[in-house]
Amino acid sequence: MTQADLRRLVGAVGVDNLMDEVIHDLTEALRGFDAERIDVRKREGFALEHAGRTGVLEWMPVMRRGETVTIKVVGYNPDNPAEHGLPTIIATNSVYDCRTGHLQVVVDGVFATALRTGAASAVASQILARPDSRVLGLVGCGAQAVTQLHALSRVFTLERVLVFDTDKDVERSFAQRVAFLHLDVRRVSLEELEAQSDIICTATSVAVGAGPVITGQGLKPHVHINAVGSDLPGKTELPRSFLEDSLVCPDFLPQAVVEGECQQLPRERIGPELVSLVQAPEKYEDWRGRSTVFDSTGLALEDQVVTQTLLRHARRLGLGTRVDLESLSNDVMDPYGHVMTDAEILCDEQDLTSPAVSQRAVAS
Amino acid sequence: MTQADLRRLVGAVGVDNLMDEVIHDLTEALRGFDAERIDVRKREGFALEHAGRTGVLEWMPVMRRGETVTIKVVGYNPDNPAEHGLPTIIATNSVYDCRTGHLQVVVDGVFATALRTGAASAVASQILARPDSRVLGLVGCGAQAVTQLHALSRVFTLERVLVFDTDKDVERSFAQRVAFLHLDVRRVSLEELEAQSDIICTATSVAVGAGPVITGQGLKPHVHINAVGSDLPGKTELPRSFLEDSLVCPDFLPQAVVEGECQQLPRERIGPELVSLVQAPEKYEDWRGRSTVFDSTGLALEDQVVTQTLLRHARRLGLGTRVDLESLSNDVMDPYGHVMTDAEILCDEQDLTSPAVSQRAVAS
Repeated sequence: MTQADLRRLVGAVGVDNLMDEVIHDLTEALRGFDAERIDVRKREGFALEHAGRTGVLEWMPVMRRGETVTIKVVGYNPDNPAEHGLPTIIATNSVYDCRTGHLQVVVDGVFATALRTGAASAVASQILARPDSRVLGLVGCGAQAVTQLHALSRVFTLERVLVFDTDKDVERSFAQRVAFLHLDVRRVSLEELEAQSDIICTATSVAVGAGPVITGQGLKPHVHINAVGSDLPGKTELPRSFLEDSLVCPDFLPQAVVEGECQQLPRERIGPELVSLVQAPEKYEDWRGRSTVFDSTGLALEDQVVTQTLLRHARRLGLGTRVDLESLSNDVMDPYGHVMTDAEILCDEQDLTSPAVSQRAVAS
Repeated sequence: MTQADLRRLVGAVGVDNLMDEVIHDLTEALRGFDAERIDVRKREGFALEHAGRTGVLEWMPVMRRGETVTIKVVGYNPDNPAEHGLPTIIATNSVYDCRTGHLQVVVDGVFATALRTGAASAVASQILARPDSRVLGLVGCGAQAVTQLHALSRVFTLERVLVFDTDKDVERSFAQRVAFLHLDVRRVSLEELEAQSDIICTATSVAVGAGPVITGQGLKPHVHINAVGSDLPGKTELPRSFLEDSLVCPDFLPQAVVEGECQQLPRERIGPELVSLVQAPEKYEDWRGRSTVFDSTGLALEDQVVTQTLLRHARRLGLGTRVDLESLSNDVMDPYGHVMTDAEILCDEQDLTSPAVSQRAVAS
């Protein structure tokens, strides 16, 4: 699936419909989640040190037993925008047939990650936030904030969007980037944002050890926060005292205690995982009147869901290009069967094995 | 890099030259190996249960710090040949720019794995086997045996190749598959093979718990064995008593103790890793007169080396196709910048957001 295929797909389906489907598909995947059928791995990766700022390159594998393995490989490099003109998060999602090892699909993970991260916040917020939430605050106005807002706008009737970023250029350009939503977007101080928001999403590139990114003062008692930015050991966005007073729900506990807000909490103070929320939402309804946190570190299951959503449409629309990638010969026992051309075998038989001769033989 | 690109590459370079280069490049990579610069990870994966036979789908990441991350994703499925007409080992190798997360290359890993696994045995055998080794025994005559023989034929003057496989069809077809080497290939009993070989390669799909695949009786006192098949907990090819009497050198200790022949040995009975052999071969020269084992589980570094060897030629020859895969918009802060078409934005502005209308707008 190329960039161009993806563009055609979004053009045909519509970005609102696509977001609605990802929210729906993710909800269903969590509701029906069965650890016997789906094996989700904690992401692992390489830490990258660039001139003092930490980046990562990570792989996030998930298997639907007997069907497919989806692996997202994702780079988080906060210097990408300034140094390379590239998004902070670059990713590709690959799907393998787990019965044979065959690579079935490679598809963009940049758009997919933004979509599914937004969708995950929508799913959590539908359970933990007040259904009449009207004011959304966004701390950090980068690429992820666009889909946080988009996803939440699909499940809440938002009257006002308050935005704050330490990078004022990014803060200023945000309204234009979400113009397609026709919402009332206002740049405000962090203090105003904290005081007025029913739901807050933090999606920042705050450096390791430099958090929190909100004060935790003057918040509405029922505030729900989607903390999206934590993705590294030592990187957190919320004040510990606020976490201690709130129901903190990680997307994936083993990951959240390493690189999420849950790093700041002892295990016994951590609330249920997203899957538990979705499977028994009624248990957590009382928390809608109190402060809650969705600790979103990013779950391989989400990548599998969004990839399947995109591929379902791609198949329907006939998008994507078939590529013969693996060297598969007719004789499965012969690793050279496919790559040895007749010309080369001829050369070889004539003892003309120098590369120059082989090249001519192939060219002729 | 497609199948067709790879075929052109091999045609241009010649398979002998390519094998020589991989042996050379791997030797150099090991000789200059510096753990500060190269981060090799133990492979992880999903176990697959098919009707009683165990398979795996695994990822093998390695980083050249500040340059690239190479990840091979490899399936080992012993039922592939009979059930799907596919090789037991299917793999693809992907290269990422570790500074940005950008996916640079996807290339076949089937041919590459066979090449580099052969090359690794050649590197180890040059140090541990007698330089005048003349008789090579192959236990298991599948795809990996082809490149074991090819690689060893590049560094030893082989007079005779003795082959044995429990699958007699595979054993019979082997001579044809290696006809390009013009060697004297003979089907023999396991007993003859063990008695006459100076070097043995075991490359079998023996089931977990069903090993060993040789008796260990009547071997030449100086025999060197490349044990290539172990790749699963519980899967081993050599008798424990033989291992106990030999110098056993793993390619990568943390992996070999989990899924290699080294599973059968206490840690203190395990010899040096391949990298130590290559960095100080003179230390192990005395072992050429005694029995030695290269415990080859497959090292991510080998995949990185062979991938770079292939890509060097691909670049030189102008092979491969550039694909715009990641959804990168001009505005790095806008995940929708690239996928939202003008038509869709128009639709949206007119509040014509149903998919049917969007589709027509895009089609027009």
